[in-house]
Amino acid sequence: MEFGIHTFVWNDGQSQKDIEQAMEATRAAGYAVLELPGLDPARFDLAGLVRRAEALDLKLAASAGLPPACDVTSPDPETVRRGEAFLLEAVGVARDLGCSQMSGPIFSAHRKFDTLPDRDGWQRSADVLARVAGVAKEAGVALCLELVNRYETNLINTVAQGLAYIADTGSDNIFLHLDTFHMNIEEADPVQAIRLAGRHIGYFHVGESNRGHLGSGCIDFAPVFDALLEAGYDGIVSIEAFNPPALNDHLKAVCAIWRDVIGDNAAFARHARTFMEMQHEAALRRAAAYGGA
Amino acid sequence: MEFGIHTFVWNDGQSQKDIEQAMEATRAAGYAVLELPGLDPARFDLAGLVRRAEALDLKLAASAGLPPACDVTSPDPETVRRGEAFLLEAVGVARDLGCSQMSGPIFSAHRKFDTLPDRDGWQRSADVLARVAGVAKEAGVALCLELVNRYETNLINTVAQGLAYIADTGSDNIFLHLDTFHMNIEEADPVQAIRLAGRHIGYFHVGESNRGHLGSGCIDFAPVFDALLEAGYDGIVSIEAFNPPALNDHLKAVCAIWRDVIGDNAAFARHARTFMEMQHEAALRRAAAYGGA
Amino acid sequence: MEFGIHTFVWNDGQSQKDIEQAMEATRAAGYAVLELPGLDPARFDLAGLVRRAEALDLKLAASAGLPPACDVTSPDPETVRRGEAFLLEAVGVARDLGCSQMSGPIFSAHRKFDTLPDRDGWQRSADVLARVAGVAKEAGVALCLELVNRYETNLINTVAQGLAYIADTGSDNIFLHLDTFHMNIEEADPVQAIRLAGRHIGYFHVGESNRGHLGSGCIDFAPVFDALLEAGYDGIVSIEAFNPPALNDHLKAVCAIWRDVIGDNAAFARHARTFMEMQHEAALRRAAAYGGA
Amino acid sequence: MEFGIHTFVWNDGQSQKDIEQAMEATRAAGYAVLELPGLDPARFDLAGLVRRAEALDLKLAASAGLPPACDVTSPDPETVRRGEAFLLEAVGVARDLGCSQMSGPIFSAHRKFDTLPDRDGWQRSADVLARVAGVAKEAGVALCLELVNRYETNLINTVAQGLAYIADTGSDNIFLHLDTFHMNIEEADPVQAIRLAGRHIGYFHVGESNRGHLGSGCIDFAPVFDALLEAGYDGIVSIEAFNPPALNDHLKAVCAIWRDVIGDNAAFARHARTFMEMQHEAALRRAAAYGGA
Repeated sequence: MEFGIHTFVWNDGQSQKDIEQAMEATRAAGYAVLELPGLDPARFDLAGLVRRAEALDLKLAASAGLPPACDVTSPDPETVRRGEAFLLEAVGVARDLGCSQMSGPIFSAHRKFDTLPDRDGWQRSADVLARVAGVAKEAGVALCLELVNRYETNLINTVAQGLAYIADTGSDNIFLHLDTFHMNIEEADPVQAIRLAGRHIGYFHVGESNRGHLGSGCIDFAPVFDALLEAGYDGIVSIEAFNPPALNDHLKAVCAIWRDVIGDNAAFARHARTFMEMQHEAALRRAAAYGGA
Repeated sequence: MEFGIHTFVWNDGQSQKDIEQAMEATRAAGYAVLELPGLDPARFDLAGLVRRAEALDLKLAASAGLPPACDVTSPDPETVRRGEAFLLEAVGVARDLGCSQMSGPIFSAHRKFDTLPDRDGWQRSADVLARVAGVAKEAGVALCLELVNRYETNLINTVAQGLAYIADTGSDNIFLHLDTFHMNIEEADPVQAIRLAGRHIGYFHVGESNRGHLGSGCIDFAPVFDALLEAGYDGIVSIEAFNPPALNDHLKAVCAIWRDVIGDNAAFARHARTFMEMQHEAALRRAAAYGGA
Repeated sequence: MEFGIHTFVWNDGQSQKDIEQAMEATRAAGYAVLELPGLDPARFDLAGLVRRAEALDLKLAASAGLPPACDVTSPDPETVRRGEAFLLEAVGVARDLGCSQMSGPIFSAHRKFDTLPDRDGWQRSADVLARVAGVAKEAGVALCLELVNRYETNLINTVAQGLAYIADTGSDNIFLHLDTFHMNIEEADPVQAIRLAGRHIGYFHVGESNRGHLGSGCIDFAPVFDALLEAGYDGIVSIEAFNPPALNDHLKAVCAIWRDVIGDNAAFARHARTFMEMQHEAALRRAAAYGGA
Repeated sequence: MEFGIHTFVWNDGQSQKDIEQAMEATRAAGYAVLELPGLDPARFDLAGLVRRAEALDLKLAASAGLPPACDVTSPDPETVRRGEAFLLEAVGVARDLGCSQMSGPIFSAHRKFDTLPDRDGWQRSADVLARVAGVAKEAGVALCLELVNRYETNLINTVAQGLAYIADTGSDNIFLHLDTFHMNIEEADPVQAIRLAGRHIGYFHVGESNRGHLGSGCIDFAPVFDALLEAGYDGIVSIEAFNPPALNDHLKAVCAIWRDVIGDNAAFARHARTFMEMQHEAALRRAAAYGGA
């Protein structure tokens, strides 16, 4: 298991310099992985980022969210076409950054929908994702569907839905990106959800119920880490949180970040790492006691 | 403490007949109170509803949410004016229905905002609410601010914010309407939040973390009921949930109801009542053991 | 899954009349099973109890605890011999009562030990239990080892130990009797313990952390009922609690019952049944959501 | 709040050298306080221990448990007399060690009782403690009653009982020594218990439900640390656990330590300190959010 942190704990990643600063802060806080938001390849020197990461012995993880104009569930073919192009570009960026996966809410627009989901939109999305997953596979990049809550997509909110969707794509290169913040809203039981997801988990976000300090909210993390261990998940576990002073208004509005719940972000990052490590160690201890893992 | 249920467990309350059916179902499920959504006085025979409720020995509770065109935080004076009129009408409906409070997300539009909150919008809202609260007081109706989550308003998500807002209105007729579903997303600690709210609690919604069956989600209800007891709250505690087959598409989209998590709604209602009663009794038992209540 | 209740919720079962009263109270409280403490066959008309149970459509469950003079871990051969005779008699009683199992702390004296456990005592116990299990098997009675806490035995406190012990007996007629009160003290994780026990569970006690009202203590019962379902356990789940006014001093001292934490025992029994049923239903609901059971 | 650790995490404290080694290990693990078990003043150079502690900048805390021969609840006057002498000597040791309190199960024998408690024994105990508390007060030593579980005393298991007992002594120098391991067995709600104890808390033990690694058991520590903060407790919080390889058989039998649940004791100690600090910081964070502390 490798511990990562999302760029948004540091800044909004709008420039090469932002990302480089985030890399250094990530290293200083003791993480092995930095998760990058969707980067426009025309605006970033990706090779430069890779070199910087290698110099810091840091792994990069790529994520992205589909903007409304690229909604692959849309009845408008042009919108869907834009979505497919957007995803293919994001896969290319992930590949160029040396990432083994590209994750996020990539199966529909990342937004509060005003319309109900329907079977046709689901199928349009699955068709696009199947194609993109094929291309991604050749690039060595796994697609990971971030199961965000009902207010950020209307299509897939739970693991059960996610698995049905993956089956419908017919792809073996699509996985689930689970997130404790979202599961706390959508899953009757996040722990059973993780166990149901099992070997289909491709990426994992840890976030407190209010997106604040881990352990200071409503989420019971002990059985979450037990379930990750039981699922045999040994990939990246990243803390996702938001540092409002360094984020632009558009990003804050999209993610509904109306107030600061993390305070000193460097202290927050160090705390999150220690918290995750202690939870993981506790899970290993319990697994040893019960013959698991 | 009186146990209530929201109309949306039964239907979307779009007609006199809907409400009457909801009243009967509420009675059959053993509740003392039916919470009604905002009713247009031009379309409903309010006096008829009151008679029907009296015949069933049922109390009514009024709630409402501000539509975007009535957003009292808006920089557009006309929008704010419409909001004030909307609220005054809702207060009148509450009074005519014999309700002692009118609650809901009434301090801003009930929607996912695309803009950040600001001090001016807060003040515009507080000014309107102060005036409406004055009128409401004369009508014997308390205003209760429902603290909904970040995706349903950008203005007030936590008890701490709610208390600051009430202070800014200067009114003694504005209270908090807390909801466990929303607190599970926004409050670092819902129990401390209830204790902080204390005597300012005017209405209370119980809802599971995924809006499904109580006790089958992430919320730890035991300390919630302890805290209500400690706060001396003896008002209405209503289950809020949504029965998708009987709701219109607009309502489902506003509330992000994309799937059915309650199944048989009559069975759900009976279960919720038993659950709330058992939790309340357990809280009384603990309070007796520890000298509380 | 069948719900049962221990006689000690009613009385100490020292007479035929006590047991008959307990049967009636058990029926009145809606249970399917009454768990009887060790009955001396010389003092009870077992056939009469069976007839009474049949008339009430009640199933009986047999349990027993080894007194110090019958400690099968003892280095004294005569004590061990007495223990074996005691267990064989208890198996006979279980058989005559039509019980499919005989459970309790039967692998060592049921007491606070003043000495450390050792390998020889373990082996003496395992040898006796293997022989008794063989006889019991012919009688159609499964032996169930109640894993009590450190203060009630020094030999086996956890599921991991219990499974090792069963393996050492070489018997296929020895199972585990788990108890949430004891697991709350001994198991790092009662839920993982139940899952580890799996198909070896032969009997199950539900008890709150302080032996009081279910749901008013420290135990998180939701995942306990999930784990029972996952383990495929469809046997008896009994509430064990103690009604001090109707128990003799010796029994109270053995079980460390110094105060009354249940109050009205008939109300306690009804509450426990409703609580267990609701927990079981919630577990079924979650299992349906996650493809389990 | 100062974090301490019990000597038994290191060794059984049977010699000057044992204690000195424990002091060094305590310091190395980053604790401010070492809790010492009852020391026989005839066998220890107390002044030497004080010098050693000062050199290490370590505070000492004194505890003791009444042996059966010194049971102050006994109907035998000679036994009670021995108990009073034992306690007075323990107070003297605490004073000589510079401790501001002497704590432990000092109101009755520390054992599994075979007899029921009665009012006379309670009164005999209260009379002795009142006198000892008077002497202790002049020595600047507060008496703290450790509320151990039902298997370790029959007299006082809960905070409610402890407060009644203190009232009966009439002393203002008797406080409560709470312990999470014991509360997990005895209190319907450990958090309400801490709040009920309030300013009467004089010492505090943190222990996991199975006496193993903090956070790897059944206890929900977050609200425990919230409650300590709310109670205004700023005294010593010590981890109590047992390192079997370094304890004598008698001690293990008295405390029912039949197996090793901590493993590497130095690693255990460091983990416990980090765990307690993180819990305390999280409580401070929540208190800041909710206007507490």
